[in-house]
Formats: sequence, C-alpha cells, structure tokens
Amino acid sequence: MPERENERCFRELCSGKPILYGVRPAGEVLAILSESRTLLHAGPPITVDRLCGPVRGALECAIVYEKWAKSYEAAGQMLERGEVRIEPTHHHHFVGPVAGVVSPSMWVFCVKNENDENWAYSPLNEGMGRALRFGAQGEDVLKKLGFLGQVVGPVLAEAVQRSGGINLKRIMQKALEMGDECHNRHEGARLLFLAELLPHSLNVPHPSTALREVCKFIAGHYYFFVNLSMAACKAMTDAMGTIPGSSLVTVMARNGTDFGIRVAGTGDRWFTAPCQRIEGVCFTGYTNADGNPDLGDSSVTETAGLGAFAMAAAPAISKYIGGTPADLTRQTLEMYQITEGEHPDFRIPALDYRGTPTGIDIRKVASTGITPIINTSISHKQAGIGQIGAGRTRAPLSCFQEPVAALDEVGSGELRTTFNYSPSCRGVAS
Amino acid sequence: MPERENERCFRELCSGKPILYGVRPAGEVLAILSESRTLLHAGPPITVDRLCGPVRGALECAIVYEKWAKSYEAAGQMLERGEVRIEPTHHHHFVGPVAGVVSPSMWVFCVKNENDENWAYSPLNEGMGRALRFGAQGEDVLKKLGFLGQVVGPVLAEAVQRSGGINLKRIMQKALEMGDECHNRHEGARLLFLAELLPHSLNVPHPSTALREVCKFIAGHYYFFVNLSMAACKAMTDAMGTIPGSSLVTVMARNGTDFGIRVAGTGDRWFTAPCQRIEGVCFTGYTNADGNPDLGDSSVTETAGLGAFAMAAAPAISKYIGGTPADLTRQTLEMYQITEGEHPDFRIPALDYRGTPTGIDIRKVASTGITPIINTSISHKQAGIGQIGAGRTRAPLSCFQEPVAALDEVGSGELRTTFNYSPSCRGVAS
Repeated sequence: MPERENERCFRELCSGKPILYGVRPAGEVLAILSESRTLLHAGPPITVDRLCGPVRGALECAIVYEKWAKSYEAAGQMLERGEVRIEPTHHHHFVGPVAGVVSPSMWVFCVKNENDENWAYSPLNEGMGRALRFGAQGEDVLKKLGFLGQVVGPVLAEAVQRSGGINLKRIMQKALEMGDECHNRHEGARLLFLAELLPHSLNVPHPSTALREVCKFIAGHYYFFVNLSMAACKAMTDAMGTIPGSSLVTVMARNGTDFGIRVAGTGDRWFTAPCQRIEGVCFTGYTNADGNPDLGDSSVTETAGLGAFAMAAAPAISKYIGGTPADLTRQTLEMYQITEGEHPDFRIPALDYRGTPTGIDIRKVASTGITPIINTSISHKQAGIGQIGAGRTRAPLSCFQEPVAALDEVGSGELRTTFNYSPSCRGVAS
Repeated sequence: MPERENERCFRELCSGKPILYGVRPAGEVLAILSESRTLLHAGPPITVDRLCGPVRGALECAIVYEKWAKSYEAAGQMLERGEVRIEPTHHHHFVGPVAGVVSPSMWVFCVKNENDENWAYSPLNEGMGRALRFGAQGEDVLKKLGFLGQVVGPVLAEAVQRSGGINLKRIMQKALEMGDECHNRHEGARLLFLAELLPHSLNVPHPSTALREVCKFIAGHYYFFVNLSMAACKAMTDAMGTIPGSSLVTVMARNGTDFGIRVAGTGDRWFTAPCQRIEGVCFTGYTNADGNPDLGDSSVTETAGLGAFAMAAAPAISKYIGGTPADLTRQTLEMYQITEGEHPDFRIPALDYRGTPTGIDIRKVASTGITPIINTSISHKQAGIGQIGAGRTRAPLSCFQEPVAALDEVGSGELRTTFNYSPSCRGVAS
C-alpha cells in the first residue's frame, strides 16, 4: 500500500527546518560552474536548440556578466557550440526563479535543513523591472548584478555569519499571518527578514552607506524574499528524497519549454510535458499572448505547500495576479483534494489556522484530474525584454499520469531493492 | 436634514493625511504639564475619588517617575490633595493607550494632519508586560520609561527629523493588507515604520549600540505602533471638529470608570456611561473577572474606521483577542449598519477591497441598538499589577441615545449660530 510510504514522505517534507547559514559566490559552492564553464537553468534538462526566449536571453546575459564573451551574440554562439555547458539547477540542489540561471560569480543563499542535514541554494534576487532572470539584457541589467555582487552579497554574508543562522521557516510561518503566500507575495517576509538581520548588520564594519543601500533594497524590493523562500522549500522538499512506493511529488519545475516533475517513488527520473500558458495581469502595453509559457523553479513553493496552495492567506495578492480573494480561497481549498495532508507548521489564519494543503500526490491528481495551481510571474517570450506581468497557471495533467503508470508497472518490493535511498532518508525504516 | 452635515463630517475624517514630523518631550509640547504639575489621563474627565485602579496606579507611577514624590503612597496623597492636577488627554489633542497617562518627561509622537493643519500627540509605548500604562509600578516599570526617555526618544527624534516626515496613513493602508487592524495587531505596521525610518536612522550620529537597541525594540515590540496609529487617528478624527447638525462621533474614549463620547453636532460636550466589561483571552492565572472595565483612548482607532471596524482584515488577531476569524468578519460587517460610509483609503483585501465602515452615526446606533465593537487590552483592576489579557467589548448604548436627544432638542438653525466652529472647519461652507 502506498499510504505508509506517503505518510513517511509527508513527515520528511513537513519536519524540515531550513536555516540560512551563509551567502557565498556560487562558484565557491559548486566548483564545476567556474572550472568547466557551466551555467545552471530552471526546470528539467533541455538542449540549447529547444531553449525558450527568456532562458536563452538569461544564459547569454550571464555569459557576458562572467566576461566569457563580449557580446550577447557571441554568447549565443558559445552556447550553440557547447563551449558553455548548461545543467538543471535541481541536479545540484539549486533553485532559481524564472530562468533560474546561476553563474559562478553570482552570490547565493546557502540554506541547511537542520532536520536532514541537507543543503539548498538559490541566487540573490536582482530586483524588479528589467532583470536577467526574466531574460532581459543590457547595461542596466549588468549593473543590477554588479550591485548584488559587490554590495548586497558581501554585506549579507557578514551579517548572516554574525547572526549564527536565520530561521527561515519561522519567518514564513509568520508571513502567512501577514498576508503572504511565500511565492508571489512577500510583503511581511522580507521585513521580518530585515528586522531579524538588522541587529547583526549594524555590527558589520561596512560603510553605513552600503548598509543603508542594502536595507533599502531589502525593504523596497517586492521579490527580495522569493529566493529565500525557494531555497527553504528546496531544502525541505529535497528531504523527501527517494522513497520507493511513494506517490508524492518531490520536484515540480519549468524551463519555459517543458514542465517537469519528479516523484519520491521514481527517484531522479523526470516526467515532462509542454509548459502551459499563464492567465494573469499584464503590465500596460502587454497581453497574456506576449507571455512565455510558465517558467522557473519557483513552483518549489507549491511543492512544499505554499504559493498558490496558501493563497487563502493572501487576499491582497489578487491585485497582483488577478481573480478575487474568494476565487483564491476556493483554489487553495481545491488543493486539499490532491495532497497528502495539512501542513503542521504552515497555517492559514482565515481558514481558522488550518494547515496548508501539502504533499502533492500524483495518484490523486491523476484520479481527480485536478492539477496543481501555480502562482507565477510572466516573462516576455522574446529574449532580452523581461517581466510583463504575473498570474496563475496549472501544471499539465500528463506529467502526473505518466509516473502513476511507472509506479504501477514496477512492484514496490522490487523498487525497494533497486532504488538507492537518498542520504536524506537515513534512519527511516524501510 | 443631518445627511449633508454628516457627509461633510465624513469627508473631513477620511481625507486626513497624518504625517509624523517629530518626537519630543511632552513638557515641550504642552507647557502646563511641567509648569503646573499636570498629568493627562485617558477618557472623559474624572475626579480623583472615582479613578479606577489602573489609572490611579499609572498616575502614581508617573509622579514618582517625575520625582515629584519619592513613594507611590506619597504620590497618591498628592493626587488626593490636588497638588498634582489631572486632565483628559482629549482636551489637549493627546491620546494615550490604556491609562493614557502623560507626564512632562515622557517623549511623545507629534503628528500633523496635513489636510487640516491640526496636530495630535501620543506618548511612546513602553513595551509589553508590566508597564505604567496598565497601572503597574516598580523599578522595572521606571526602567522601561527611562529607556524610552534616554535612548528611544532621542534616536527616533533625530531619525524622524532627518526623514522629513513619515506618512502614517500610507503605512496603515499597507498594514491592512498585512493582516493588521491597527488597534490590537501591528505586525506589519511596525516593520513598515522601521523600514521607512531605517535609512534615516543610519545617518544618526548615535553609537550603533543605541540604534541596535532601538531597532530591536521597534521590531520586537507587539504594541510599538499602536501609539502611532492612535496619534494618526486622533489627527484625523479631530479634523471633524464641530459641525452643527452632524450626528457623527468625533471622540470615543474610556477612563476605566466612565465611557465617554463627543459628537460633531454637540461639540465639546461629553456624553458618558459606565465602562463595560471586556470578554477576551486572559494570560495564565487570570480570568476576565480580574479585569478592569474597558479603558483607554485607543478606541480612537475604531472612531476612525479601524480596529474592530477592520477586523475582517486581521484573521490572525483571533489568537490574541479570542473568537474565530469568521466571527471577527461578521462583527466588522455589522459595523456598516451604524456608520456613515466606507473609508476610501482604508480597505479590506478579504472583502474585495471594500472600504472599512467609517464614521459612527449616533442616530444609527440609537435606532438599531447596535453599539460599536472595540478591540482592547485587559488591565488588572487593581493598581500596580498590569496587563492580564486582550479581548473585545461594546460601547454602552446610552452614550449614543443621550446625544440624539440633545441634537433633536435644539434646531440645527439655532445650533449654527450658537456653536463655535473648530479651527479645523475653516473653509467649510455652512
């Protein structure tokens, strides 16, 4: 019976304790990035010829930022000739919003799940408007990356070190009481983070102008916390590891061309389907038709029981992604039909502190036809432009049907002997 | 017809623009405090012999803090002999939470309503636990006051001055999107305030230890923002002034013995009734029976369309004051029956951004029998103890019936000639 395995998987997911312990250049964390000129991208694996516009734009921009090429055109040729390798973030315990591109000079949050001793990483967020993660290119985009690398990264690194660790789960729990859903709304979370870091920041021997800029950046940047939320969720979802017989989703991510999931019972195998369109609210001058299909690793928040799965906690997000607060609550309630349980720590005040629907079960998705809802931003489909709005989408149904068949084909007894347990499952009786 | 006057009154109330421009010792703002040994207290006027325990305790503590007496006993005797005068906060454009006691050395927020050029003042909040405002006494209470006077006041004063003014209405608008109701929950508001003040604080030539302490105090103190919310609401409600014929409530305040209101159409006259009991959640070891009846000026927030009138925006407050989120929403909805309109700026996301019920109309209260709901904290009824919980109460009905009779007795034509217009009504055609 899959229930026992799913219960175990759910417990691993919910008991995660993500702590931010460091902020470091990505190349220090993952040596292959600089040693073999590798860039990470969001979602399942993909070849260069199938890249969507925003991811290609972001990769080219990262190559120019790293000074591996002098022009975006030359950068594109390096990608095509294979002189720069690309690999999925998820293959290295990374997650990145939208294009999810990580290059060695980018500073990353280093988050440890204290419960399972596993680590997860996410780059710092560049700010709103034209930004690399949306596939934008240009001097303004490079300047934002430079500010992160030269000012924000070093100031945060020292403050985080002095703090002894910032408990991200506690911040996210409180944020749910402050109208955030921890994917597309972070008005509470980023201020809670700032308030927690501040006493340590004030000990940092930096010129106060740098600290002032960093504080303003954190307080004023709508999406500052999304990368922390994502790294925390990655640390929690990775703890599910491989659990033979379990039908819970461990990864749900998009590269803008393919939507891919991984399931605890089928380990590292990806199940993919074309990314779906996003329905949302576009900035003036754009329509949903200009948008690239759904893109990014940020659906790691929904995989952990947040984001659209917690929208009932965030009525004010309706202004940003569309719909009415009543719609958003209905959609959160719908997700209880396809999940294993209610999160013991992430709770929704407006639903009388009911735990968020958590642990997407592919069997329930396949049998009900109800697919996970995902809150997301909308990138222009062409390389080099950027964000044009935000909205909601659904995961494609076939992604969930295929692994059900795979689970059914192989007896769970056989799976037990043929699957490798991930390190995070040590100590769990089989 | 009273409608035209009420519309005018409602417009004056809603168009307020409260800006925090200064933080100064109360004695500098109101000379009589030090010149003639005067203390302010919350609510309508009262004689010393009728003071409730917490207000008497707070007045004695303030006398010791000012070094006008060496013991609380001697302080009590000074009050009884009239050697220290007491006056209502509202007679001087002040408001204070709970006992509402203000003495000359206490630092106060100075808030200007840019729309009407009127000022309002409120002392800094001392923090949770044992505090003067709840009637507590002792070295720990005096130490908190000393920290406000020597550290918090001066640091804030410089930062606020350098900021050029902090827009409190904008903070309160955002806070309603972050699960605050701006009376008994301020999780968003105090962090928004901190984030706005921070860049200016980092310019202040104070030792960083002082700034660190102040930042931690603001970020960590549940009730830090209530005094700012109250001063902002006082600045907005005072703008209604005296408008003959208007049946809207301009002041609603409690001294722990008497509940008092003022009405735009009857000017400075107080209408009072005994304070009601509070139903709420008590700290371990106490029951509602230990609580003093309803107390404080903080009902200025409900008078301005916030607090219990905005509870539907704050489902998480149910943990603190009791009830379920559904109860709280129902009670907010009930308040639309006794108010003039929906606030154009204070909006409730969960009600699809409907404006909060604003402008309490004594005629509607009297005809429906529905009395204003007030969120409040619970003080122990004995002097010297402190806060024992938080909950909700109702304003007493007779307070609203009496002024209806008073309005009916006098023709509005006669009122127009006999009433003095308050300065805030300049420019309003009669």
